[in-house]
Amino acid sequence: MITLTTDFGMRGPYVGEMKVAMLRMNPNATIVDVTHSITRHSIIEGSFVMEQVVKYSTEGTVHVGVIDPGVGTSRRALIIEGEQWLVVPDNGLATLPLKHIRPNRAWEIDIGRLKRFTGWDVSSTFHGRDVFGPAGALIDKGIHPDEFAREIELESLVKLDVGPRKENDTWLLKVIYIDDFGNVILNLEDYGSPSRVELVDFDIKVPYLDTYGQVKPGELLALPGSHGYLEIAVNQGSAAERLGLKVGDKVRVRLVQKS
Amino acid sequence: MITLTTDFGMRGPYVGEMKVAMLRMNPNATIVDVTHSITRHSIIEGSFVMEQVVKYSTEGTVHVGVIDPGVGTSRRALIIEGEQWLVVPDNGLATLPLKHIRPNRAWEIDIGRLKRFTGWDVSSTFHGRDVFGPAGALIDKGIHPDEFAREIELESLVKLDVGPRKENDTWLLKVIYIDDFGNVILNLEDYGSPSRVELVDFDIKVPYLDTYGQVKPGELLALPGSHGYLEIAVNQGSAAERLGLKVGDKVRVRLVQKS
Amino acid sequence: MITLTTDFGMRGPYVGEMKVAMLRMNPNATIVDVTHSITRHSIIEGSFVMEQVVKYSTEGTVHVGVIDPGVGTSRRALIIEGEQWLVVPDNGLATLPLKHIRPNRAWEIDIGRLKRFTGWDVSSTFHGRDVFGPAGALIDKGIHPDEFAREIELESLVKLDVGPRKENDTWLLKVIYIDDFGNVILNLEDYGSPSRVELVDFDIKVPYLDTYGQVKPGELLALPGSHGYLEIAVNQGSAAERLGLKVGDKVRVRLVQKS
Repeated sequence: MITLTTDFGMRGPYVGEMKVAMLRMNPNATIVDVTHSITRHSIIEGSFVMEQVVKYSTEGTVHVGVIDPGVGTSRRALIIEGEQWLVVPDNGLATLPLKHIRPNRAWEIDIGRLKRFTGWDVSSTFHGRDVFGPAGALIDKGIHPDEFAREIELESLVKLDVGPRKENDTWLLKVIYIDDFGNVILNLEDYGSPSRVELVDFDIKVPYLDTYGQVKPGELLALPGSHGYLEIAVNQGSAAERLGLKVGDKVRVRLVQKS
Repeated sequence: MITLTTDFGMRGPYVGEMKVAMLRMNPNATIVDVTHSITRHSIIEGSFVMEQVVKYSTEGTVHVGVIDPGVGTSRRALIIEGEQWLVVPDNGLATLPLKHIRPNRAWEIDIGRLKRFTGWDVSSTFHGRDVFGPAGALIDKGIHPDEFAREIELESLVKLDVGPRKENDTWLLKVIYIDDFGNVILNLEDYGSPSRVELVDFDIKVPYLDTYGQVKPGELLALPGSHGYLEIAVNQGSAAERLGLKVGDKVRVRLVQKS
Repeated sequence: MITLTTDFGMRGPYVGEMKVAMLRMNPNATIVDVTHSITRHSIIEGSFVMEQVVKYSTEGTVHVGVIDPGVGTSRRALIIEGEQWLVVPDNGLATLPLKHIRPNRAWEIDIGRLKRFTGWDVSSTFHGRDVFGPAGALIDKGIHPDEFAREIELESLVKLDVGPRKENDTWLLKVIYIDDFGNVILNLEDYGSPSRVELVDFDIKVPYLDTYGQVKPGELLALPGSHGYLEIAVNQGSAAERLGLKVGDKVRVRLVQKS
């Protein structure tokens, strides 16, 4: 199985070209579209989305991610092997999924040798179709990365800075995702079971509950969400809009523990 | 074959997570994405869309629908067996597809027993991935609902009120769907062959024709549409915009029969 | 393999109905969604998108395209055989993909005979589900077009006028596509390696380079793009917005050759 996560948008030929190119390499591949609507060039958003899909995928799944503002520059095209595979540009996109695959080896794709498999020229602007898609299709088919890539040090991969920070009793967090409903996801996991969450910059305390319907429509709450990260939401409304937040914004939070 | 109809949107990890979770249960499933862009929480719109797909699907197809404003509350998660299967929350979503599958049995999913198959915890907010998707995948694989659900009375299912009403010569109808082109679909089937349709609230009579191109661009018409329901349209334009209508709105209609 | 390119939008039942109808005819079909978000009724945009996918598809692939403003009128429904297959309305949609498939025969679908295979009535408004989809599924399955279509002259097909024109040193071009990033694609191929491109109507000369990142964010450039057509772009921005261009607009261009 191969999953695809990109910022190509749904309107154009890009997704179709990438998929027919992959099926050309590997006609029996099962390709799962995760999304092609990652906010353009938003590596952190793409990394969060890939992480969620990795968590529910089986061993050996190949995850191809293409959020690639550096296409055409010298950034490396990576293959990472672990319990699952990642095929992504070396720009930090792998950061969050890497937490779940126990990586043991990595390669940089060698475009010249890859071309012996694909048979077509590599454009300067569309490596989803010309590099990442075919590489993922070949790996899923059982071709070893050594055939078209050179091994590199796992330690050399570019990483995003997504660790939460704490100053005294205040968490300095970052918005790592806002879903279609306007729910705001913050980079804090394993934070216990608070009774309330204080949004310091907004001078608001919101109840920490299990699900949206436990507050009235239109009211703010915090909850564990479905991804393990702390989530801020409005029942039947948009927390992102209410609070004016977007991906990458900083949010200061205090957790009020059950007493 | 399994079809998916949800309001998850196309941007996030949700659709991808749900599909990899399903393929984990049933690696050989053929999954057909109907849409993930149902208007958020619009049960009537989801019901209409599922109905159309059911009408063209073959016996045994499993239709998973997740428009689920009550997720995390005590609403039941249903499996309905007929000529085709429905796996949906018990909130009325099944109403229109039920007309076409000759239902004979229904079950409420037992989350504790389902978890023996999936192996992961059920979140409070994402039953598409944790309940409905896996249940649909198991049924498609041939696992009997009795293995992870308890039978309930078919009569106990929640139903939407979608019957058209008539007062004297006037139909009291409801907008059950507006498509991407702005065509307005009303809850009236089997209404004969009128020559014109009077939109009482707008004091307009529009011709009843076979296809959009039979009026000039920009003109209103009524037509049978492709779904059997009465449809109001503007050739190369949006009837919803012209008339200011949205899903759920009431519309009074008189049919002017051919004389 | 069957690819689908339509303007149905992603919200409604249309894509789902079309795909279940196709799988009903041909349960083992591999269906690749290219896009369902072609600008409504934009035949030129659909033709461009189909062309790109054809270029990377293998022999025998069936490409179904439904951008069909004339649905319900007497426009013909076509099957075109070459190294790959096209199943499209006869409105010019085939123009650009035809350049790549070495066509040798064409047929007009006979709705009466097609119905013997599908078993359901053909609506006046949804030939994707009732005509083009099933026809494509049957061809992919190996049913010969003669079974449900009558042969016509290849020369009789409707063609778009997409040839670039030249007056003295100035190319009179047309915008054939604008991607989600706002990159503007013009109908000029095989134009050598200019050093700069003059956009005559805007009195601007932009550098001709290999990739977006070679100019500063926000700056205009021209480049070969990934499709072989001349492309105008803004690094990390929208050239369409900057220049106020949309699909179908005319653009005059002078190429400044390397000296």
